[in-house]
Amino acid sequence: MRLLLLNPNTSTEVTDLLAAAARRVVSPGTEVLAVTAHRGVPFIASRAEAAIAGEVVLEMLARHAGDVDAMIVAAFADPGLGGLRELSPVPVVGLAEAAMLTACMLGARFAIVTFSAALGPWYRECVAYHGLLDRLAAIRMLDEPFRAIGDVQHEKADRLVELACRAVEEDEADVVILAGAPLAGLAEVVKDRIPVPLIDGAAAAARQAETLAALGVRKATAGSFRRPGGKPTAGLDPALARLIEARNP
Amino acid sequence: MRLLLLNPNTSTEVTDLLAAAARRVVSPGTEVLAVTAHRGVPFIASRAEAAIAGEVVLEMLARHAGDVDAMIVAAFADPGLGGLRELSPVPVVGLAEAAMLTACMLGARFAIVTFSAALGPWYRECVAYHGLLDRLAAIRMLDEPFRAIGDVQHEKADRLVELACRAVEEDEADVVILAGAPLAGLAEVVKDRIPVPLIDGAAAAARQAETLAALGVRKATAGSFRRPGGKPTAGLDPALARLIEARNP
Amino acid sequence: MRLLLLNPNTSTEVTDLLAAAARRVVSPGTEVLAVTAHRGVPFIASRAEAAIAGEVVLEMLARHAGDVDAMIVAAFADPGLGGLRELSPVPVVGLAEAAMLTACMLGARFAIVTFSAALGPWYRECVAYHGLLDRLAAIRMLDEPFRAIGDVQHEKADRLVELACRAVEEDEADVVILAGAPLAGLAEVVKDRIPVPLIDGAAAAARQAETLAALGVRKATAGSFRRPGGKPTAGLDPALARLIEARNP
Amino acid sequence: MRLLLLNPNTSTEVTDLLAAAARRVVSPGTEVLAVTAHRGVPFIASRAEAAIAGEVVLEMLARHAGDVDAMIVAAFADPGLGGLRELSPVPVVGLAEAAMLTACMLGARFAIVTFSAALGPWYRECVAYHGLLDRLAAIRMLDEPFRAIGDVQHEKADRLVELACRAVEEDEADVVILAGAPLAGLAEVVKDRIPVPLIDGAAAAARQAETLAALGVRKATAGSFRRPGGKPTAGLDPALARLIEARNP
Amino acid sequence: MRLLLLNPNTSTEVTDLLAAAARRVVSPGTEVLAVTAHRGVPFIASRAEAAIAGEVVLEMLARHAGDVDAMIVAAFADPGLGGLRELSPVPVVGLAEAAMLTACMLGARFAIVTFSAALGPWYRECVAYHGLLDRLAAIRMLDEPFRAIGDVQHEKADRLVELACRAVEEDEADVVILAGAPLAGLAEVVKDRIPVPLIDGAAAAARQAETLAALGVRKATAGSFRRPGGKPTAGLDPALARLIEARNP
Amino acid sequence: MRLLLLNPNTSTEVTDLLAAAARRVVSPGTEVLAVTAHRGVPFIASRAEAAIAGEVVLEMLARHAGDVDAMIVAAFADPGLGGLRELSPVPVVGLAEAAMLTACMLGARFAIVTFSAALGPWYRECVAYHGLLDRLAAIRMLDEPFRAIGDVQHEKADRLVELACRAVEEDEADVVILAGAPLAGLAEVVKDRIPVPLIDGAAAAARQAETLAALGVRKATAGSFRRPGGKPTAGLDPALARLIEARNP
Repeated sequence: MRLLLLNPNTSTEVTDLLAAAARRVVSPGTEVLAVTAHRGVPFIASRAEAAIAGEVVLEMLARHAGDVDAMIVAAFADPGLGGLRELSPVPVVGLAEAAMLTACMLGARFAIVTFSAALGPWYRECVAYHGLLDRLAAIRMLDEPFRAIGDVQHEKADRLVELACRAVEEDEADVVILAGAPLAGLAEVVKDRIPVPLIDGAAAAARQAETLAALGVRKATAGSFRRPGGKPTAGLDPALARLIEARNP
Repeated sequence: MRLLLLNPNTSTEVTDLLAAAARRVVSPGTEVLAVTAHRGVPFIASRAEAAIAGEVVLEMLARHAGDVDAMIVAAFADPGLGGLRELSPVPVVGLAEAAMLTACMLGARFAIVTFSAALGPWYRECVAYHGLLDRLAAIRMLDEPFRAIGDVQHEKADRLVELACRAVEEDEADVVILAGAPLAGLAEVVKDRIPVPLIDGAAAAARQAETLAALGVRKATAGSFRRPGGKPTAGLDPALARLIEARNP
Repeated sequence: MRLLLLNPNTSTEVTDLLAAAARRVVSPGTEVLAVTAHRGVPFIASRAEAAIAGEVVLEMLARHAGDVDAMIVAAFADPGLGGLRELSPVPVVGLAEAAMLTACMLGARFAIVTFSAALGPWYRECVAYHGLLDRLAAIRMLDEPFRAIGDVQHEKADRLVELACRAVEEDEADVVILAGAPLAGLAEVVKDRIPVPLIDGAAAAARQAETLAALGVRKATAGSFRRPGGKPTAGLDPALARLIEARNP
Repeated sequence: MRLLLLNPNTSTEVTDLLAAAARRVVSPGTEVLAVTAHRGVPFIASRAEAAIAGEVVLEMLARHAGDVDAMIVAAFADPGLGGLRELSPVPVVGLAEAAMLTACMLGARFAIVTFSAALGPWYRECVAYHGLLDRLAAIRMLDEPFRAIGDVQHEKADRLVELACRAVEEDEADVVILAGAPLAGLAEVVKDRIPVPLIDGAAAAARQAETLAALGVRKATAGSFRRPGGKPTAGLDPALARLIEARNP
Repeated sequence: MRLLLLNPNTSTEVTDLLAAAARRVVSPGTEVLAVTAHRGVPFIASRAEAAIAGEVVLEMLARHAGDVDAMIVAAFADPGLGGLRELSPVPVVGLAEAAMLTACMLGARFAIVTFSAALGPWYRECVAYHGLLDRLAAIRMLDEPFRAIGDVQHEKADRLVELACRAVEEDEADVVILAGAPLAGLAEVVKDRIPVPLIDGAAAAARQAETLAALGVRKATAGSFRRPGGKPTAGLDPALARLIEARNP
Repeated sequence: MRLLLLNPNTSTEVTDLLAAAARRVVSPGTEVLAVTAHRGVPFIASRAEAAIAGEVVLEMLARHAGDVDAMIVAAFADPGLGGLRELSPVPVVGLAEAAMLTACMLGARFAIVTFSAALGPWYRECVAYHGLLDRLAAIRMLDEPFRAIGDVQHEKADRLVELACRAVEEDEADVVILAGAPLAGLAEVVKDRIPVPLIDGAAAAARQAETLAALGVRKATAGSFRRPGGKPTAGLDPALARLIEARNP
């Protein structure tokens, strides 16, 4: 089985972290292909940057989707997820979506812990988009600068563990999600320091993508996630233009 | 006062309809500038097309925002609205948002009536995004082809009136919204044929943009809608790149 | 255009504050008529007082509605709003409703800041009535006595600014509403001291009333906000009795 | 024990129906005093009429509350309930509230069946006010004229039974509420014709009022349902004025 | 009238507390029969223990239901309530359900105060099951060991009063529920020390069971709470087996 | 990896269907152990039967949990799931939970299609328990008798396909879940006849159990899903008694 991990951030260091976290948990024989955004910003941390990424991931789909069994959009607010799901012939999961739905199977309410104060209210919109506000115990964020996006998980590990423990004690979280692509892999390192299940978004997304492929579910040919009919475009990335213009097979 | 109407569709006919509907209702002395998307599709009708538009409207902001008092993103699912609100120095309203919030002042529950069956479930996500599902009576859609996007409002006027009347009788809608940029202006023509208040999204958005400007509210400098800090970009539209890269003044 | 502002409080000082805040923001050519409740209490601050005001505003409608284009019920919990909307031939907006719906166009969640601890849980019921609990970040109230209702906004300005700033920092409010008719006009004075958009209910309501009039929406003749059929009354204010008894024209 | 039933409608025939339904179910030794509104309309059937009733019931409280153990506001949308609960020294229940909360103990979701199409959307607001929309299966209404309010329950019995049965079959209602003061007593007559528990609002309210009295719960002296502090009034019914002006004992 | 109180805990001391609290409030002539679980744990304090109790209360129903008018399942999370309601020929109320629905008639939002930190998140699930999260102000729990379940209400009375008072001041609770079968009767003792109405679950449940019986509502013969059709069983308690196997009369 | 599938129904034919559906989708090297309830009913189809199953699955856990990596409770309403999750040292997923959360990754709203009309309202409670009502498009049920539980999926295949297609067309379901343990395996057979992704609960649960094991999440030692402290029991199944009485290691 082949999974395609789309990193909507332009940082290849983050791609490496994501791919490593994904590969650690997939089944024997499953291959994880990882591609880095060809344009955008190093680390998406606002609604505007996510809006840009929403188009970029469609371009990545158009360029790379070739012969894979499922796809992952690997940034926490799941930019472009709905559009990918319409256009892709194979299942697509988002990092946040996979993390939250997996968390739901481990307890009643989850907390989201992340490393930047700017992310909180925007992440909350993502929780709401997935209809999961009732399952959210809290979003806890660091409010301090970090040195480098590729290293933030090491620099802030102790502080994030502390936040996670407070989410358990004060917010009654049954599960904690370490959120944000740059934290991929950290859960594995610190999980023994937090007294409830800890979710790594990249790992959860890889397993969920694999699951959707393994279940053999079909592409919708009706309803609002069927492939939209082809229509003319202007000024788009050539690969994306071809994808949008193509008639529904 | 100057309002900038951003049409995320590439159809200039639709821009003309939107601008006319807006100009009909603004106060004396208010000018409506209308620009058409420089790239994209003629009429956004899917999540994927809206994801593309999400970046396009940011590019339009970067290119045109100059000296205006408020902005309108003039497609029904409000593509890119959150990102625009972060980056724009002046208030921004969405067509769907303005239509729905205005409808809320005219009754307890509104119906959304539109001309394409594909739009329903996706529009519902837009209602949910704005936290207004409790105010939604129904979404009613035509399920039949149309000839031309610029003329769909004339071709389908009778059928849309019929749907609106059924929304009042069967869904207990207190207000009806005619949704979709290509229907701009139709409400004015058919309002006497529907026994409850009828909302035109473009008109509502123009008045709401004017209202936000008139109230003189400030741009946030804290919280999640403040201008995000500048950061490096790669491969973006030059104007948008400059906007994203700029340090917060 | 003529707007009628109904102050359900008997304090003319409050009427003056409301009218001034409204007049500051309306379009050139729009006239704001303001009337003070002919009976009731100086400042409505409980459910019981609002229940009284619910009938009083209907009497005010019956006495004053004459030749106006839209109306405002100018107390924060919107007493009698639903009934006014049924009986009035022109659109009606409430102070709380207008403030909250306007706030929704400026961010994801708003805080309500007010000057009396008694008001909080009751205001929360008003937010729920409008279906906007998901958009509410917090209600923050002073818990201290004040000298005079007509001057409370000056006396407590610093303390209210402090509460508003805490709502931004601690409750992640994207927008703040200064709530309660006696605070009309204060937002204009202190808006530079609060780092997010600040909403004045009277100003928002005036602009929204103007908007509903400008949009030219019709009076419902079907559904639950149509004019109820005439019926016999006993013991009511003569003007209100005539209004209730009149057959639907 | 003495219960005071306040009929906010001016029809004494309706008072008689309400009192009879209440007396049929109270415990031995419980006395039901019933008073008819001294002003208002014969049968409240709109938000405007309920707004009037909101003040009228406070006047009734001020005039009649004397020596009773609990009170009932006996119209389906519970006019003035919040205000009564603040001012009354003894517990108060509403007809709709009691019917719905009682229904919740007999199944997962209830239907509301009533005799006038005008009542539906407004009754829905009442369900929402009590936070019970998740427990509502449907509101079903007759849409046909009736001869006399005091006799509507006999005239429409068969049609209402039919609606109730459809609510069970089509809406999956586990319980049915016959709603509207003029239907008081009908449930007892037709309950064998409907295959699920059937609730009479007046009977439910009488028993719930008795329950609150029997539990011996205290009047709040803190929080938002404590007796509001006294304040000056102008132009109110003398008894109500005295009640509002009185200092908190 | 005869009420059957089923204590799903095996502690007879708790049964005595529950029965005494119930008997204190029922009407003259109402008899309260109380039975203690024949198997299980002394005090249910987890989901697993409640799952066991879910079957045990059905066995208790099968063994004891004989000639009674209504039943009470007397543990706070209402174990087995839905199943009891299907199988029982007479109405059944749960302790938590009765306490919460009664609280709803005394204010807008209630707090739940209990004596063990383990109970909070699980109690919250019970509030959600009854669709009442919007009415919940807070759950406050002691986080300290206690000596004996039969005496915890005396040992912890002062601490629980303190928590209740904080729920009023800090959480804006209008009503407080003392939750957990071992606290039965405590409300009567401490109610003067808490400034809002205080609910005793056992007392509320007894009155509500009496109310359902007094209203004379019928057993559903349609819908999802009708008696399920008989079916073969294996390995069940003989009385329960007979009940499940019996054909619907 | 070893997964333990607990069939809470006593029908071994259903166990065989569940195990086959599970084995079809798990990764190479994953073993599925399946056990059939030692007591209960052949097919759980009511709240009462699920309450019995709630204890039975705990007994199955106590008897069989030995050396496995994750567990599945394989009946659609997930009986005993919360309790299992507390007591089990390894992750546990429910059939309904896994089906619904998996469906959420394939579209915005799912429909549940099942073969017995009795199941609908009770299944809805299960959706609510998991906080997923906003994601539910509809529950559609056959309302006709069937011959044998082990063969119902063949007998009713055409009728279920028809219901699924109507859920897509009329309810706008993006995904369909075939619900009920006796339908395990049917999705694989009919998936080409339904134009949206079709979910088999047993297959989804097997993959999700595998995923939770593969992620290596730890057992909670804090919060409400930690192993409850040991306590005395009376009259329980010996294996379950030992499990409940054991002190937390």
